[in-house]
Amino acid sequence: MTGRRLKHWGWGYEDQAPSREELAEAATGIRERLGFGGEPEEPVPLDQVEIRPSRLKAPADLGDLFSDQKYERVSRALGKAYRDVVRGFRGQFENPPDLVAFPRDESEIEVVLNWCEAEGAAVIPFGGGTSVVGGVEGRLGERPFVSLDLRRLDRVLEVDAKSLAARIQAGATGPRLEDQLREQGLTLRHFPQSFEYSTLGGWVATRAGGHFATLYTHIDDLVESVRAITPRGTWESRRLPGSGAGPSPDRMLIGSEGILGVIAEAWVRVRPRPEFKASCGVEFGDFLAAAAAVREISQSSLYPSNCRLLDALEAATTGAGSGESSLLVLGFESAHHPVDAPMELALEIAREHGGAPGEVRGGGKGSDAVGTWRNAFLLAPYLRDTFVACGVLSETFETAITWDRFEGFHANAMEAVRAKIAEVCDAPTEGPGAPRVSCRFTHVYPDGPAPYITVMAPAVRGGEVEQWDEIKAAASEAVIEGGGTITHHHAVGRDHRPWYDQQRPAPFAAGLRAAKAELDPAGLLNPGVLIDPA
Amino acid sequence: MTGRRLKHWGWGYEDQAPSREELAEAATGIRERLGFGGEPEEPVPLDQVEIRPSRLKAPADLGDLFSDQKYERVSRALGKAYRDVVRGFRGQFENPPDLVAFPRDESEIEVVLNWCEAEGAAVIPFGGGTSVVGGVEGRLGERPFVSLDLRRLDRVLEVDAKSLAARIQAGATGPRLEDQLREQGLTLRHFPQSFEYSTLGGWVATRAGGHFATLYTHIDDLVESVRAITPRGTWESRRLPGSGAGPSPDRMLIGSEGILGVIAEAWVRVRPRPEFKASCGVEFGDFLAAAAAVREISQSSLYPSNCRLLDALEAATTGAGSGESSLLVLGFESAHHPVDAPMELALEIAREHGGAPGEVRGGGKGSDAVGTWRNAFLLAPYLRDTFVACGVLSETFETAITWDRFEGFHANAMEAVRAKIAEVCDAPTEGPGAPRVSCRFTHVYPDGPAPYITVMAPAVRGGEVEQWDEIKAAASEAVIEGGGTITHHHAVGRDHRPWYDQQRPAPFAAGLRAAKAELDPAGLLNPGVLIDPA
Repeated sequence: MTGRRLKHWGWGYEDQAPSREELAEAATGIRERLGFGGEPEEPVPLDQVEIRPSRLKAPADLGDLFSDQKYERVSRALGKAYRDVVRGFRGQFENPPDLVAFPRDESEIEVVLNWCEAEGAAVIPFGGGTSVVGGVEGRLGERPFVSLDLRRLDRVLEVDAKSLAARIQAGATGPRLEDQLREQGLTLRHFPQSFEYSTLGGWVATRAGGHFATLYTHIDDLVESVRAITPRGTWESRRLPGSGAGPSPDRMLIGSEGILGVIAEAWVRVRPRPEFKASCGVEFGDFLAAAAAVREISQSSLYPSNCRLLDALEAATTGAGSGESSLLVLGFESAHHPVDAPMELALEIAREHGGAPGEVRGGGKGSDAVGTWRNAFLLAPYLRDTFVACGVLSETFETAITWDRFEGFHANAMEAVRAKIAEVCDAPTEGPGAPRVSCRFTHVYPDGPAPYITVMAPAVRGGEVEQWDEIKAAASEAVIEGGGTITHHHAVGRDHRPWYDQQRPAPFAAGLRAAKAELDPAGLLNPGVLIDPA
Repeated sequence: MTGRRLKHWGWGYEDQAPSREELAEAATGIRERLGFGGEPEEPVPLDQVEIRPSRLKAPADLGDLFSDQKYERVSRALGKAYRDVVRGFRGQFENPPDLVAFPRDESEIEVVLNWCEAEGAAVIPFGGGTSVVGGVEGRLGERPFVSLDLRRLDRVLEVDAKSLAARIQAGATGPRLEDQLREQGLTLRHFPQSFEYSTLGGWVATRAGGHFATLYTHIDDLVESVRAITPRGTWESRRLPGSGAGPSPDRMLIGSEGILGVIAEAWVRVRPRPEFKASCGVEFGDFLAAAAAVREISQSSLYPSNCRLLDALEAATTGAGSGESSLLVLGFESAHHPVDAPMELALEIAREHGGAPGEVRGGGKGSDAVGTWRNAFLLAPYLRDTFVACGVLSETFETAITWDRFEGFHANAMEAVRAKIAEVCDAPTEGPGAPRVSCRFTHVYPDGPAPYITVMAPAVRGGEVEQWDEIKAAASEAVIEGGGTITHHHAVGRDHRPWYDQQRPAPFAAGLRAAKAELDPAGLLNPGVLIDPA
């Protein structure tokens, strides 16, 4: 609550915003590089933002548990999707929470739930606020709601070094929990792109995808047990390395996006910090040949920690390639033994498919291409704020599909997006100034990849949200019709609902609705996410 | 339905039962070896078994969909736990199904469900009938019920060699599905001890544990999508290599033990048959030192396919050891690359903890100790029929626990069982003729092992069920009080309910009950398993 303050509308802290001069320079660079984008605009400053007065009055006897301050309400009104950042930039906060609650412990979470139930208010659990699917945005019409911010629950409570597990509070951000684990020589190594701001509770609630490209791809695989506060009592599973006792209780909470309970803490599987590392960039002239290599590597049981394939345009956009070649970023790591041998086996597969490996680097420094790529990965969300200011549409969507369908699926999805962009963007379809649609694999499985598609195009200033929503709808149709999932690791929230509803088995939806009604009879928790409000 | 017939009371086929002479010889051998056991008794032959007349009359227009024949009803009345085999041996089939249904396809499953609902009858889905937890045994008082046998749905319907996945019907047994996959050079490599008779649908319904000691321990990890028939329609998930779209629908069905729907088929992840293998037995003077080695191996990310630790008594009982040493059975396998290097790294860990490795064998033959152990593993359920005939109590229970608690947990559980045995068995507590309580690890995880405990003791003839139930209750108390799971891979069924109910989070139980009520409002499906009958 003290010190640096996060931007009320974009990525990172207020002091990280570029100056006017830097922004002007960036705009020139963007135009030179992409061939589109305009003069930078300025975000609406907080003091000029107008929001609806709070419809709830915090009870005086609950002290500083609640805040109705404008900054707190505004900065929790939206997530961090392109459509959110654009709206925030323009000062459009239509549905801010009426209050923000900052519980210090589980009993205060219960106090908030009880008070909200009595007031007829809804509750939206809030971690880092980095949702890109409308997961923290109240769209509740006349119903008042409280944003339940878990940032005060940010400690590593217990470390079991023998079992390599740690009990961590839900509100701990990536750096906060890694700092505490580092004291014991341990790490969770779950690094989503939102790592700096997002929280363990948010990761568990949304099935976040992390660092590992194979095996431990989702936070799901790192969870040993979960503790959540539901309106019907505390849900706590046992710490178990494995179990076969009925359907997994954890797997019902993991991905529940706040509709069944407020995740308070979890035991997660940690590991010693890796001592042995090897990484290598491999260039391929042909993207589909590269995909075939990735398929074989993913089926080799070599289990690289990194196996990210960037198509030529994606590699060029992130500065890791010339635009002529696809780039496969391969990495192996271990706390126990050297990883040169599996790296060599993986490179052999890559070579057989026409790949040209660069130098293998150890010790975590990575080859130049790898290092460039990683920096771009972590900086991307900051850059997006600049793109918004400069009139560049910049957004992503992601999915997963089995290998047998990948080629056609990929071609169809890319084409559907390109066609829709041609319709809604004023730009040439080829050459300088053409919109960019590029693809990478973020995670790979023996049975298929998780393709992640980035779109960059000239924005229709003032109409960005509608413009993107049209592109996104076309992409989502292609994904769902092609048999993919509407999300591999971005979650469902409110934005993915129309396609999620088509994807999930109807009896499962009925069962989930019934479970929700049983655990949250007042429909308190995150209404509209995953299922319709009661 | 033709050819060899399974025993109506024990393990395997009728023609596999030992002759009277073989049995007499076995009885002598058992007494010499164990120091207990008596003269062999004979099972009650089927024609002398008396059962309750069927309370349901199969509709004439449904042809051979139903059977009310005595053999069919009797052989589906019980599972294959010790308490089941004993009762079957003595001709005690108190609650046989009133009818057995043999659907040929999904529409016939629906016909059975609809007909049963109209008749007020319950339905117990039946795969191989190898449940050891009362999962297929109707304990429904006056309510008639139908055993829904899925054996006619036994085909591999589709193989996607590119994604390494296969669509397989629920009623396919282990050998049946492996035979069909072998034609394409593929394998599922899921080998529970019941492999010969149990079915894919049963594995998915009960979260069966298989061949792989690390990584892909449960069938859960091999399931790509599931298709089930519920009273509220067909539940079918998409084929996805990975997804983050809400709580996993598959994970709600996996382990549902037939209470939410009848699993009809699943897409599972298969693999090429392994070409490279290495296995090695490692002897340890001290069990806890061996456990420490296993812990380090499980945390090394070497991922052995086999990492089974037998304590000295267990090794001796299965003929794989002298009784002086614990035996760690290590195995690595790959379809892609030689596995000598990871084997050597694992053996190095074992040596550091005082282990003495035998010869490393390749090509799947294994060292002598390994081969002996594997044969004993597959033969154990056959042997148990002989034990029952010869008055030897022989049963197992299993769990999982984190490493930090393992030592005390193991000591307590072993002691609780030994103390109860001393109470309920007429035998010396030490030396020749003493009951045997031994332990092995079936699967291991970075955060803990799955201990599996075998009990052998002189049976109280005619009172075996009560005798075992007392021992089992003591074991279960120790497991639950010690923080373990009531089952790592044997499932919950009806027998584990009292302890399962203590283990699971109460709000999860409430949610599961609500989901069940929504999907199966008539309470048709396997009432009493996992949750109370409505």
